[in-house]
Amino acid sequence: MPDTPLLDQVKLPADMRDFDIPRLKQLAEELRAETIDAVSVTGGHLGAGLGVVELTVALHHVFETPKDILIWDVGHQCYPHKILTGRRDRIRTLRQGGGLSGFTKRSESEYDPFGAAHASTSISAALGFAAARDQKGETNRVVAVIGDGSISAGMAYEAMNNAAEATNGQLMVILNDNDMSIAPPVGGMSAYLARQVSGGAYRQVRNIGKKFVEHLPRPFKNAARKAEEYARGMIVGGTFFEELGFYYVGPIDGHDMDNLVPILKNAAAITDRPVLVHVVTQKGKGYAPAESSADKLHAVVKFDVVSGKQTKPVSNAPSYTKVFGTELIKHAERDPKVVAITAAMPSGTGLDLFGAAFPDRTYDVGIAEQHAVTFAAGLAADGMKPVCAIYSTFLQRGYDQVVHDVAIQHLPVRFAMDRAGLVGADGSTHAGSFDIGYMGALPGMVLMAASDEAELAAMISTSLEIDDRPSAFRYPRGDGVGVEIPEFAAPLEIGKGRIVREGTTVAILSLGTRLQESLKAADALAARGVSATVADARFAKPLDTDLILRLAREHECLITVEEGAMGGFGGFVLQMLAEKGALDAGLKIRTLHLPDVFQDQDSPVAQYDTAGLNAAHIAAAALQALGVEASRAVRA
Amino acid sequence: MPDTPLLDQVKLPADMRDFDIPRLKQLAEELRAETIDAVSVTGGHLGAGLGVVELTVALHHVFETPKDILIWDVGHQCYPHKILTGRRDRIRTLRQGGGLSGFTKRSESEYDPFGAAHASTSISAALGFAAARDQKGETNRVVAVIGDGSISAGMAYEAMNNAAEATNGQLMVILNDNDMSIAPPVGGMSAYLARQVSGGAYRQVRNIGKKFVEHLPRPFKNAARKAEEYARGMIVGGTFFEELGFYYVGPIDGHDMDNLVPILKNAAAITDRPVLVHVVTQKGKGYAPAESSADKLHAVVKFDVVSGKQTKPVSNAPSYTKVFGTELIKHAERDPKVVAITAAMPSGTGLDLFGAAFPDRTYDVGIAEQHAVTFAAGLAADGMKPVCAIYSTFLQRGYDQVVHDVAIQHLPVRFAMDRAGLVGADGSTHAGSFDIGYMGALPGMVLMAASDEAELAAMISTSLEIDDRPSAFRYPRGDGVGVEIPEFAAPLEIGKGRIVREGTTVAILSLGTRLQESLKAADALAARGVSATVADARFAKPLDTDLILRLAREHECLITVEEGAMGGFGGFVLQMLAEKGALDAGLKIRTLHLPDVFQDQDSPVAQYDTAGLNAAHIAAAALQALGVEASRAVRA
Repeated sequence: MPDTPLLDQVKLPADMRDFDIPRLKQLAEELRAETIDAVSVTGGHLGAGLGVVELTVALHHVFETPKDILIWDVGHQCYPHKILTGRRDRIRTLRQGGGLSGFTKRSESEYDPFGAAHASTSISAALGFAAARDQKGETNRVVAVIGDGSISAGMAYEAMNNAAEATNGQLMVILNDNDMSIAPPVGGMSAYLARQVSGGAYRQVRNIGKKFVEHLPRPFKNAARKAEEYARGMIVGGTFFEELGFYYVGPIDGHDMDNLVPILKNAAAITDRPVLVHVVTQKGKGYAPAESSADKLHAVVKFDVVSGKQTKPVSNAPSYTKVFGTELIKHAERDPKVVAITAAMPSGTGLDLFGAAFPDRTYDVGIAEQHAVTFAAGLAADGMKPVCAIYSTFLQRGYDQVVHDVAIQHLPVRFAMDRAGLVGADGSTHAGSFDIGYMGALPGMVLMAASDEAELAAMISTSLEIDDRPSAFRYPRGDGVGVEIPEFAAPLEIGKGRIVREGTTVAILSLGTRLQESLKAADALAARGVSATVADARFAKPLDTDLILRLAREHECLITVEEGAMGGFGGFVLQMLAEKGALDAGLKIRTLHLPDVFQDQDSPVAQYDTAGLNAAHIAAAALQALGVEASRAVRA
Repeated sequence: MPDTPLLDQVKLPADMRDFDIPRLKQLAEELRAETIDAVSVTGGHLGAGLGVVELTVALHHVFETPKDILIWDVGHQCYPHKILTGRRDRIRTLRQGGGLSGFTKRSESEYDPFGAAHASTSISAALGFAAARDQKGETNRVVAVIGDGSISAGMAYEAMNNAAEATNGQLMVILNDNDMSIAPPVGGMSAYLARQVSGGAYRQVRNIGKKFVEHLPRPFKNAARKAEEYARGMIVGGTFFEELGFYYVGPIDGHDMDNLVPILKNAAAITDRPVLVHVVTQKGKGYAPAESSADKLHAVVKFDVVSGKQTKPVSNAPSYTKVFGTELIKHAERDPKVVAITAAMPSGTGLDLFGAAFPDRTYDVGIAEQHAVTFAAGLAADGMKPVCAIYSTFLQRGYDQVVHDVAIQHLPVRFAMDRAGLVGADGSTHAGSFDIGYMGALPGMVLMAASDEAELAAMISTSLEIDDRPSAFRYPRGDGVGVEIPEFAAPLEIGKGRIVREGTTVAILSLGTRLQESLKAADALAARGVSATVADARFAKPLDTDLILRLAREHECLITVEEGAMGGFGGFVLQMLAEKGALDAGLKIRTLHLPDVFQDQDSPVAQYDTAGLNAAHIAAAALQALGVEASRAVRA
């Protein structure tokens, strides 16, 4: 544990409001050491937090949190913020079951007025707080921090476009520009910011800033008016933001406390127009292994503090993400029409592999899921075979575009929905819980779910063969189950499932990831003398009506299992069975799905247990339906 | 019918490629007259189309459509385009069942390479076409037209941000700036564009343009290089777009064919960077009744061409939209915390009424559904009572924000989902088909559907009382059923439905709009000697478990009815019944919902008939389930 004498005295931000700059600097150093040590124990997001240590200290020093509202975008940079705001005693429970969330979370602290985990929401939320303050006639200040990656998203622009109209009072946006989101930056906005920073103006302003500090009157007289003059004096660019109605201040060095604190104080006094403070930081700052890493140690597992060496767990199977990237390359080698689209997640989606093989056929559009989907639709409309790889939870951002631009027009965009289902340490904000319902409701959509990595490979092949309508395949976070993947996976017959194990009394119909647990459940049932058929539905849409009707007809009990919310596969199956009259004479049917709550972070195994989707639950559901005492079911 | 000698000769755009400017002007005049006459017969969108008559002619003259790709945003301005592209013979079937769509539509014409109806998609789609062209090594040109309202949306910004990277070749964006979307313009971008136009630069450039034309070499020599010089010479502003990587040309007068044609020709030759041509037009141009109308006759019913007088149908009941606006005012008068949010649809949502009463408590955030939702979440997090009024189909744009910023945080944002269900003449793109599923899947959400206008009033009261979680209520396009609305509607008990009519054999459980048809179905069943209970579920979430179990227990047959897609209410009901074992011994249950197709525009009655959601279908479903010959069911 690092030596942190000053940090030990700071239980809450109020404890350092009267610190002078030297002490703030020392506090930042100790906070950095504590952050590194904590993440070395828990794993999690590291680089982003290290980049905002000084900014975190300066913000809590200048603003009267929690009365003043401080909203972090994405929230993965908030570990130093958590340490400073009364959560230091639990900081080594980050991302663990029952521990602190890896993101800001309202239920966790009054210093987290708004939770985040998806990108680009902070300005909209801050504007809501500012408007509420205006309505109530209060005077608290509101600050949103947003990264240069996040500000490329449409909703950040929508919020900036609305800012000058939706509040008459103070609103500060801190643009935390580390020229690096998760992946290298893309897009016109990124290039624009780089020009702001690379010009002579940035170097010059560092000196201007220093001079300003020397001459600052303390305490300020006529603070608001003077602050505005000072702040205006700092403007060296930022036409883009000025055109949208903001004062622009910057760019300034986000690690230089001597400048940061007075400039924030000045900018905080501007109340007649929203102000954007452009702060330049270095991701991974102050920790050599992070600074020298290509991704600035964006996200890590447990590591050794001295060497920075991470202790990666050994796996016998490749991740689904890697299988996706690898298989897509095989198709692209055969078919020049195959192109891939990612919304700022090349490594997260496995498209870094694809991009290395086919740089000109890979499109990283930035954090821009809406555009990603319609861009893919345009590619498909002109005869290409676009594969749009977006996490299930992030595809929610492009839902209207899936409906309006893809599905209504029957365009063959292929959606690779990674991280479908529960996701472990990232918790509820990243779970891919709803895609079966929201995609399966769309006319014409082909919707598949992979039960292992070979199935994923087959579904990629299937999807690329479907050229008259959209298709989607979902697969989970984490490693495959260890089955062999054929050299070139043959496409599946559309709308056909498969029987994996034949039985007599119970039919377990699994869609996607819970197939192995379903097989274990069949074993458990066999041990109780109950014979079970296990089927892999493969398709949530179109349903394999013949197979499902046969399962219903030939078994006393039918259990559907899916790693998704209610209203999904189980609902579709039931509606079809009802329509066919297959429920008229009675069927002991149960639909197992994710529970109707947002599940907090935990280990994957514990999450499945909480969700009731392990073998024991499946077997218990069958036994309960059959009227057999469920509590005596064998635990799988 | 207007006299249109030149237009009569133009069957396709190729027929006017060699027209000189005077003939193009005449063609535009005739096209304007034909558009007015056609819409006077059919009703539909008028003002936007009149504003782009010259632009439509110029674009089809300059570009080789359909080989060159021309994509209109929203598409409601495309009637002149349809007339020019081989659909004149059907133009008086616009928006009618079996007729032409009121929007661009791929299946209708090769001149509609990409369909639209929601705003702000055109740049993304065009970029997809440009990228596909680059991939295939082809040389066709790509043009997107987008309005100044649409460009305020995040996805337009996402696309512009990506444009310079996603294509190496030609891409033109026409910014059709009429300083007016459906409502008066809002936001920083709008103010920025107004500054571009209002400055001396705009007036000046008109003269510059004229001079250019006089000196233009025809045919161009070294066209590409020269064109670039000319185009660059036109640039008088546009830093915002330049910063994103575009050439900016404009602003230019979009009704001045003398300038428009040569400038488009020049700009079309720019191939090294995307170009944005800022064209200023006047909505409703050239038709006095439109020019003098406040909304420029944005959307009209049938009208008299000479007077512009519309023949509004008489109704005995207020529209649901008006009821919403009126009721919300009552609440706001009592409770200062009630605020309302619209995404550029104040009149469409009834918030124009609210805004007139409470201008400071009404937020029009622009075409920005993502921001609207998270902005509302911020307001709710700071103790206000935000009511976010967004059409069901447009709320798809903010789905991730509903999940991530509202539902996960249990914030009491109230969603007023207008236009839920089928929408008649606007067709599939505007139908609100999916909200029951995509909202009902969210943990903690309270989801209601109104069966008449008094129920809507009660649901507004209910929603405003719910302060610990999000809630939503859906209601249809069109007029109420004529029931009385109480002075102040009492809130409903959460999760409780109501029995509307008691019967014995069949239970019809209606959610929302089909209650009246359900009652008619009960009459039809009674005529066949079958006694039916009719219940109004009111809540899709939480379900009234007691009521539904009782209906299942006490009746031989249960029919659920909803104006929404599969996977919605019927699915939820079935999953609950399955879980409770209520299907084990048999239940003749059928779930009636919207069919699994995107339904084209038609009269509302015809749409319901196609959907199978009229009384006759409900009765037939019950009779079929009971084993009674359905074909003999009484037609309701």
